[in-house]
Amino acid sequence: MRKVTYGGACSLDGFIAGKEGSIDWLHFSPDVQKFMAEFWPTIDTILMGRKTWDVSAAMGGGGAGGSGGMKTYVFSRTLKKSPSPDVELVTTDAVAFVKDLKRQKGKGICVMGGGDFARSLFEGDVIDEVGLNIHPILLGSGIPAFLDAGRRIALELEESRTIHGGCVLVTYRVRRAK
Amino acid sequence: MRKVTYGGACSLDGFIAGKEGSIDWLHFSPDVQKFMAEFWPTIDTILMGRKTWDVSAAMGGGGAGGSGGMKTYVFSRTLKKSPSPDVELVTTDAVAFVKDLKRQKGKGICVMGGGDFARSLFEGDVIDEVGLNIHPILLGSGIPAFLDAGRRIALELEESRTIHGGCVLVTYRVRRAK
Repeated sequence: MRKVTYGGACSLDGFIAGKEGSIDWLHFSPDVQKFMAEFWPTIDTILMGRKTWDVSAAMGGGGAGGSGGMKTYVFSRTLKKSPSPDVELVTTDAVAFVKDLKRQKGKGICVMGGGDFARSLFEGDVIDEVGLNIHPILLGSGIPAFLDAGRRIALELEESRTIHGGCVLVTYRVRRAK
Repeated sequence: MRKVTYGGACSLDGFIAGKEGSIDWLHFSPDVQKFMAEFWPTIDTILMGRKTWDVSAAMGGGGAGGSGGMKTYVFSRTLKKSPSPDVELVTTDAVAFVKDLKRQKGKGICVMGGGDFARSLFEGDVIDEVGLNIHPILLGSGIPAFLDAGRRIALELEESRTIHGGCVLVTYRVRRAK
């Protein structure tokens, strides 16, 4: 089974982006670059909700679609056609789609962006790992990394380490719902 | 100036208590005991909002009032008299009160409980240190450790370490608002 990792940078109060999607508080460092350089080769698929796609595309990121064979899926209930030739639109049930994807051959799968899309995958219990780069800031408002999935989700700490800039990198394995 | 520390145990999604104040998810360990044994002697004053007092009193805690010379203040805009002989009721402006307290002689001051009371002290910029024991669980809902203080609050990581049970202990210094 392929591993599904949800993660990204967040503030100590749990926002992955501030008001109006602001990410000017993000601290890039050689430590982050090294982590990404190690993590990136372990995945070949990126999943994101439509809102994250919008932000990513506006920033010129485009979900790394098409680069280095990274397959990118954008999930939406409202879009009728793919917003870019580099990404594939999924309009069917996200949990069922991801369950199917996990059974297919391939590398790891990365879920980007927080909010509603991540919540739906937590609700469906298809996320295997949570990785956060906790930044030393309280944003007060923004896009939450975690929304209420309707039940407690137990985690198991895999790793925790301090990196440059007072950021704390934590990785958890998700304990399966019983 | 006396140092004001805000902190406690929280879930990875930032709740200091679950629905209806539940704390059955808290993990006590020799590591936590050791930390508390080191921290406790550095403070002589506890501040808490009325809601936290209610929970604390219901659990028989009573804010450690009267024990070992620990002075406990309960802040409320609705109470007319102190809820216990062990604690002192404060009905005046919390920020002004804490500012005055910080100028007095004494040991460190600890703010207990999250939500509105902690927010008001962050708004007033009187908190100097944040200490969290991040537990490996997503609660989904409950009493948030941080509410929107209306501005970003920059922190400086002082320490981060993994302790028993997959908990991550982090301590931050609050950078003063400019």
